[in-house]
Amino acid sequence: MPEDYKDEVLSRRWFLAATAGAAAGAAVSDAASADTLADVPPREPGADLSGHSERSRFVMISRIPEATPGRRNVDPGDAINSKTPLDKLVGALTPTDLHYERSHAGVPDLDPAKHRLLMHGMVRKPLVFTVDELKAMPSISRTVFIECTGNGWENWKKADENLTVQNTHGLVSTNEWTGVPLKFLIGLVEKEAGSTWMLAEGDDAAGVARSIPLTEEIVEEAFVAYGQNGEPLRPAHGFPIRLVMPGFEGNLNIKWLRRLKFGDQPWMTRWETARYTQLLANGKARQFQLRMDTNSVITSPSGTMEIKPGYNRVTGVAWSGHGKIAKVEISTDGTETWSEADLNGPVLSKAQTRFGMDWAWDGKPTKIVSRSTDEQGNVQPDRKTFIAQTGTNALFHYNAQQTWSIDATGRVRNVLS
Amino acid sequence: MPEDYKDEVLSRRWFLAATAGAAAGAAVSDAASADTLADVPPREPGADLSGHSERSRFVMISRIPEATPGRRNVDPGDAINSKTPLDKLVGALTPTDLHYERSHAGVPDLDPAKHRLLMHGMVRKPLVFTVDELKAMPSISRTVFIECTGNGWENWKKADENLTVQNTHGLVSTNEWTGVPLKFLIGLVEKEAGSTWMLAEGDDAAGVARSIPLTEEIVEEAFVAYGQNGEPLRPAHGFPIRLVMPGFEGNLNIKWLRRLKFGDQPWMTRWETARYTQLLANGKARQFQLRMDTNSVITSPSGTMEIKPGYNRVTGVAWSGHGKIAKVEISTDGTETWSEADLNGPVLSKAQTRFGMDWAWDGKPTKIVSRSTDEQGNVQPDRKTFIAQTGTNALFHYNAQQTWSIDATGRVRNVLS
Repeated sequence: MPEDYKDEVLSRRWFLAATAGAAAGAAVSDAASADTLADVPPREPGADLSGHSERSRFVMISRIPEATPGRRNVDPGDAINSKTPLDKLVGALTPTDLHYERSHAGVPDLDPAKHRLLMHGMVRKPLVFTVDELKAMPSISRTVFIECTGNGWENWKKADENLTVQNTHGLVSTNEWTGVPLKFLIGLVEKEAGSTWMLAEGDDAAGVARSIPLTEEIVEEAFVAYGQNGEPLRPAHGFPIRLVMPGFEGNLNIKWLRRLKFGDQPWMTRWETARYTQLLANGKARQFQLRMDTNSVITSPSGTMEIKPGYNRVTGVAWSGHGKIAKVEISTDGTETWSEADLNGPVLSKAQTRFGMDWAWDGKPTKIVSRSTDEQGNVQPDRKTFIAQTGTNALFHYNAQQTWSIDATGRVRNVLS
Repeated sequence: MPEDYKDEVLSRRWFLAATAGAAAGAAVSDAASADTLADVPPREPGADLSGHSERSRFVMISRIPEATPGRRNVDPGDAINSKTPLDKLVGALTPTDLHYERSHAGVPDLDPAKHRLLMHGMVRKPLVFTVDELKAMPSISRTVFIECTGNGWENWKKADENLTVQNTHGLVSTNEWTGVPLKFLIGLVEKEAGSTWMLAEGDDAAGVARSIPLTEEIVEEAFVAYGQNGEPLRPAHGFPIRLVMPGFEGNLNIKWLRRLKFGDQPWMTRWETARYTQLLANGKARQFQLRMDTNSVITSPSGTMEIKPGYNRVTGVAWSGHGKIAKVEISTDGTETWSEADLNGPVLSKAQTRFGMDWAWDGKPTKIVSRSTDEQGNVQPDRKTFIAQTGTNALFHYNAQQTWSIDATGRVRNVLS
């Protein structure tokens, strides 16, 4: 390698990739054959320009509608969630049409001209807003992850070795959301100082409704969104408006938002009594465990993939409801030793962060694991510790380290640890 | 407004919005009627969950394929570009299928299994890479704008008052791109120290090819992308691979990239001699004016929109090929006075930044203008200064301040200044 690049390239993290055959490539014997390869064959003009740039016919990428844990390949009518194909994505953003879906009564078909947002309860000026009125207000845009509190439940009790990372972790996605700060709306309706809780209710047939504590953090960061990755929300993601609650349970990000009611205590809806409570080992239920914890998962290599000995790029995503990801460590020897991964910047608070590391696999069976640490010092727990603390009755907030086992043939499988 | 919000909300930039009727909303007479409004009407379950979240049938949003300046509503076959609907977008990101298109021979239908990238010329190890080999290499993701050097040409000589901001500025978009750093590839083929230029050629029927100077900035920042907003590139945007050149002319971001040749001087292709040269006032042509300058445009209110007296949120996007946007100023009185707009964070280098400002329109005819300044101190020029320096023979790198005139009826029109 030439002097002028040796220091810059080889002395850096790329050394391994450059020397372990990352870029096998095919050598070109001589300049003459290179020129031959360089010749441009005559070609016909391509397709006309269009109003929308659709996907290539060679790209097969979609979510998988699933029923309750373990029930895959069900009728769409039985599906309760549709998971993001993390194994086929790159970067930190999730394509708008592949953001995971989770609904309790399907996707309503709402007319934005008729939809309204009611704000009432412990306020001095109860108001009803049209969608156009909301769009005319001061707005903010923020890129954040939204995660179903059930993400990871596939691995609570056992590990199906045939699961992909889409199956195990496909209920988290990251989009840029745009809308009106909750704090601005609260100022307009003149919330009473004594109001410490807010009920957010959706306009779907299930009327999903959650009680949200009005902490300073939530009042500062929550917003009523009408935009997603630059365009209006998609129906499956709350069109025409949804609540966005950075860092908190997906089901608090109420889709098809129809009203916000203010009060001085939680409403104890069925969504926080019958559902979304955490049944602990001692049989007691934990309610209002709202924040999503520090998490990460290796998306490549991952479940059902096959790798070859030699250079492999290990990459994945990490996220935390506590703020920014500070560090991601990767073990390629079943947690005996750990190495720090590269984080792709900018690292945003409460958004997925892409991490990566070069690795030369020696061809021997092993296990690869990732472990994230956020800016508040929260470390993603190993499975033993997590289960010891939470038990196996629970269904939510699973953030244990994900282990992928690799056998001598290079086949990657989902295992518990 | 209650004590506990007065300081936090009213003393801030939202004061105007909160008092000028931003959030008209409809008052709810009393608690009883609020409860009535709150009642949830019985509803049928919604649509089944799906593999992809499509747009609402109520959302009409698309690009406009256009021919040369002034020729709109042409047959798709005659279109040479397809513009992003900036007037209908929010935030900083452009929806993947709405990223602007500009091509010289349509969109080729390439099979990623057969596509190759040849790297040759002044290198010690000429190599040919498959797309899978590139995807296995160290990668980076970066959110940047790509702008056609012809963006803005509609307003070079005259202003058609019926143009929208999609017509005048729709040839710039911002996506998250993922790929292999050029620097890593250069290290693999062992570029000779004497090579100071690189030829990038596309695999479309036109074989678009540009000579790129290997400055430190370009070697550090350019990359060969295979990912766009989390997924594989769309065919219209270079599938399976394209060159991404943050901050430089869109046509340098070679789509359908088939080879990179290294040399010690530019190749003087027809794309840099017959096309993409700037004909100056004195009749001389400026070649290799590669960097896109500091720019901004108000997207709302903008061409053909109609506004009402009272509160209006003024918003738009600003971008610069020199780095980050440092400041955006808005004039609502035809450039007599300027106010600083809010910038939505994080402000990224060489990416579009969303800006906004509250404004109470008094109902009198006026003109609104935006002016951006980047971190290197470059200020977006007013039209007079820009034309005085560049003349009207040129077609490229138009970054003069955009003026929207508003008449007594609230109708917004495109004017020169």
